[in-house]
Amino acid sequence: MDNSKADEIFKEFKEHSVSEFFKKNRQMLGYSSISRSIVTVVHEYVTNSLDACEEAGILPSIFVKIEKQEENKFKVIIRDNGPGIPKNYIGKALAVILAGTKFHRFIQQRGQQGIGAAGCTLFSQITTGKPIFVKSNTGKNAYSCNVSIDTKSNKPIISNLTEINESEQGLYVEINLADVKYINGEHSVYEYLRRTALSNPHIEIKFISPDNEEFIFLRAVEEIPRKSKPIKPHPLGLTVNDLFEYASYSKSNKLSLFLLETFSRVTRDKLKEITDIDLNKDPKKITWEEAEKLIQHFKKIKWMLPDTNSVIPIGEKQIKIALENILNPEYMFVTERKPLVFRGGIPFVVESAIAFGGNSGNKQENESFANILRFANRVPLLFDAGNCAITSAVKTIEWKRYGLDLETQPISIFVNVSSVYIPYEGVGKEAISKEEEIINEIRFALMESARGIQKYIKGKQQINYEVNKYKTIMRYSKQLAQDLSSITGKDLSDITLKINKLVEKHYKKILNTKNEEKEEDKNES
Amino acid sequence: MDNSKADEIFKEFKEHSVSEFFKKNRQMLGYSSISRSIVTVVHEYVTNSLDACEEAGILPSIFVKIEKQEENKFKVIIRDNGPGIPKNYIGKALAVILAGTKFHRFIQQRGQQGIGAAGCTLFSQITTGKPIFVKSNTGKNAYSCNVSIDTKSNKPIISNLTEINESEQGLYVEINLADVKYINGEHSVYEYLRRTALSNPHIEIKFISPDNEEFIFLRAVEEIPRKSKPIKPHPLGLTVNDLFEYASYSKSNKLSLFLLETFSRVTRDKLKEITDIDLNKDPKKITWEEAEKLIQHFKKIKWMLPDTNSVIPIGEKQIKIALENILNPEYMFVTERKPLVFRGGIPFVVESAIAFGGNSGNKQENESFANILRFANRVPLLFDAGNCAITSAVKTIEWKRYGLDLETQPISIFVNVSSVYIPYEGVGKEAISKEEEIINEIRFALMESARGIQKYIKGKQQINYEVNKYKTIMRYSKQLAQDLSSITGKDLSDITLKINKLVEKHYKKILNTKNEEKEEDKNES
Repeated sequence: MDNSKADEIFKEFKEHSVSEFFKKNRQMLGYSSISRSIVTVVHEYVTNSLDACEEAGILPSIFVKIEKQEENKFKVIIRDNGPGIPKNYIGKALAVILAGTKFHRFIQQRGQQGIGAAGCTLFSQITTGKPIFVKSNTGKNAYSCNVSIDTKSNKPIISNLTEINESEQGLYVEINLADVKYINGEHSVYEYLRRTALSNPHIEIKFISPDNEEFIFLRAVEEIPRKSKPIKPHPLGLTVNDLFEYASYSKSNKLSLFLLETFSRVTRDKLKEITDIDLNKDPKKITWEEAEKLIQHFKKIKWMLPDTNSVIPIGEKQIKIALENILNPEYMFVTERKPLVFRGGIPFVVESAIAFGGNSGNKQENESFANILRFANRVPLLFDAGNCAITSAVKTIEWKRYGLDLETQPISIFVNVSSVYIPYEGVGKEAISKEEEIINEIRFALMESARGIQKYIKGKQQINYEVNKYKTIMRYSKQLAQDLSSITGKDLSDITLKINKLVEKHYKKILNTKNEEKEEDKNES
Repeated sequence: MDNSKADEIFKEFKEHSVSEFFKKNRQMLGYSSISRSIVTVVHEYVTNSLDACEEAGILPSIFVKIEKQEENKFKVIIRDNGPGIPKNYIGKALAVILAGTKFHRFIQQRGQQGIGAAGCTLFSQITTGKPIFVKSNTGKNAYSCNVSIDTKSNKPIISNLTEINESEQGLYVEINLADVKYINGEHSVYEYLRRTALSNPHIEIKFISPDNEEFIFLRAVEEIPRKSKPIKPHPLGLTVNDLFEYASYSKSNKLSLFLLETFSRVTRDKLKEITDIDLNKDPKKITWEEAEKLIQHFKKIKWMLPDTNSVIPIGEKQIKIALENILNPEYMFVTERKPLVFRGGIPFVVESAIAFGGNSGNKQENESFANILRFANRVPLLFDAGNCAITSAVKTIEWKRYGLDLETQPISIFVNVSSVYIPYEGVGKEAISKEEEIINEIRFALMESARGIQKYIKGKQQINYEVNKYKTIMRYSKQLAQDLSSITGKDLSDITLKINKLVEKHYKKILNTKNEEKEEDKNES
């Protein structure tokens, strides 16, 4: 025998495409259960539509329709008013895994991997054998076609490409799914869209469910969010490897110029602090050790914080409008924190809100309890809660200290993390990795919101106290009026009226609040 | 302007390699925290070594050494006595993501993705800028070289390839890591190796920690586990897409022949039940609808269970030896369930054990509580416990019903799921997806183990009762002896001896148990 055991074993060696990988491991893309898969599909398309609309400066209107075909077979239709997809990119955009406009840019967008839409095509194909059907109108050019993936090569297959007459700009996708189930409740398509409306008050969503029920989430603000722009990386966000790779592609011939041009917040003044590396050398020639040294210097230099413009939070005002619109709470407190960095220099911003009463929280058989509304770059995270930095942060807080009880009160805890790079736990992007800096910042935001709510609850307790005092006094005032009437011989109703006026004058503020509460109670029921 | 907004946006369109993807999202491969990364590296190499040894029929001896170089910089050395890697495969095996001998075969192995080892190379490279150093001896050929990845193309880079004189067969890897930390405790390299020894009593591990402490986990059995073989898929494990694809590659010219040859448990008799599809047609010509119909038929046919030989559990005897060897429990109960199928037809076997006392459970400041030892194909799962089917199953059980209290008792709950395909939650392979059929089967296994332990605990309570009764009688017997002696005038010591013998004879069994317990107490302390 000439071959070793190893040679025998390695006869079986093969390379595989990333499509084949995810075909076999579809649960990693969010296709892990029959009820979740349909939410994943809606999520991927809505996310892409919103990103495209924002990049094109369009106020998004999204139409989602789910039709039941047979048991566990559904058709999903999604239409947006976005920029559309140029004909020469349609296949790559919807049927190549790891391709897109997002992965390589340092820019805040909802999608960031170039996997989502192609994942939908793959899932449709392996459950129904059918391609997806697309219509696109870029304003210059309208066409329709079928798209599927050649999984062996991770390349698109396009068929029936036809020029069409379509008056409205946008993208229309029709996708058939089997092995799926439409459900109601916390992990439903409806809830996904409701939460999307919560974190995106500038969008409008129309949804038609398989039961032909129609839901409309109206636009609450007419402003398009500020457009995110690709930014230069901050020196504190770099790994040695990043620096080393950037340098090897540099077009500058001096290390100092390369540093000034490639990274944000680098100034000639700051570079003066680096004395033991020759900043005149060719950046393409720096060694790993020099890159390591530079990174060590970077950690000691006092940098300006990363450009605030690179991270676009929802904004306090917008969150308030959205919560009002969707939850109509009795009271809410919104916290917007300042931009910070994690892993040394990736900018991020945390926003939180606590909403109390109204449609906040979850209700089950007359009992209320809190729910946590998690968002990353305005995208609702519905699954894998246990694995998420937001859940971890919520758990670390002693809510009772703030007069809050998550087990019994109608509370919604809203957290949105915005960043040019959200460190997701998995490819399915449903949980933010538990990075300490992120958890801490969420904690601070939540504590601030909790303190805000606490004042209100204390006030409410104070009001309850005053209301009780008022009731007690009113009880006594009845007796007092009778006594005074019998002593003075004056008319009882006259005395009662005067005493009541006196008491009411004193407690006017409290009574007003009480009446408002009554009205809100009516609205709630 | 000739371009649409979409054309502008899509100027940024790019395709990316899977290496680039994981470079950016290393947390998905298990490199999510500085203490976890080093465990991930050890895990990947040990897993590969054990798979290779088993495939080559070798009793594995693994040597692991971790050296601290600087703060957060370590070198990991792993040596095995496996078959080695042929020279022409070394780059592909260690530096191409999604390549290997495992992904495409329907065979039970620890690794199944072709990502692990290349992931280590990638992590080393992006944290230290260094390639890994490898020595391989296949028995026919020995060489050493450096290996790294060209991440843009996901291709290997090999340098310093040198023929060497090396007498022992096996693979030796030296890998430098930065951004890592070595810790002790539940999520440590030591614990990973300890649990590996627990589920693999046939292996020997020598481990030298960064503090130069030496640990040896001795081989407890000399038998190599039965070699796993690729199997034919079972008809119940197929999706329509699987069937459709298999058919399109078929070399048979008759659908019936194709079905008989490609899948297990298909017989001519069973095929007689399919009457509405022409089984003489060319399998390459079947339509999706026909494939769908076939799958529906498959679901109605009563098939033999999948080949038991395809799934190789650890085995009851081996688990007992391993638990004895590592946990030395006071009592244990091992359950081995019969092979079952999930998702219709992927065979799997669940084994569970509950160990009580000894080194079972966790101990903290004199308090004991239970721990859950999770395994998939004998590989310890140390992270993401909250996301795992095993944890879910453990939580559904009312342990107190079995006289067990996980909060206070020294209990280890051991679960190993074996399958040709473990549905992992993420690429990092640390949690088994919560598929209902798997959770249910783990539940049944655990309940069986719990009932087994319950008998022992009841027995223990019974023994305690008997021991107390014995003690009481012995107290009385002293008095009785004295009384008898004074009444009869016979010698007290003589009477005492006789009475004691009488009592002891009756309680012999109980006393034996008591003495054994005393000895075990000694061993424990």
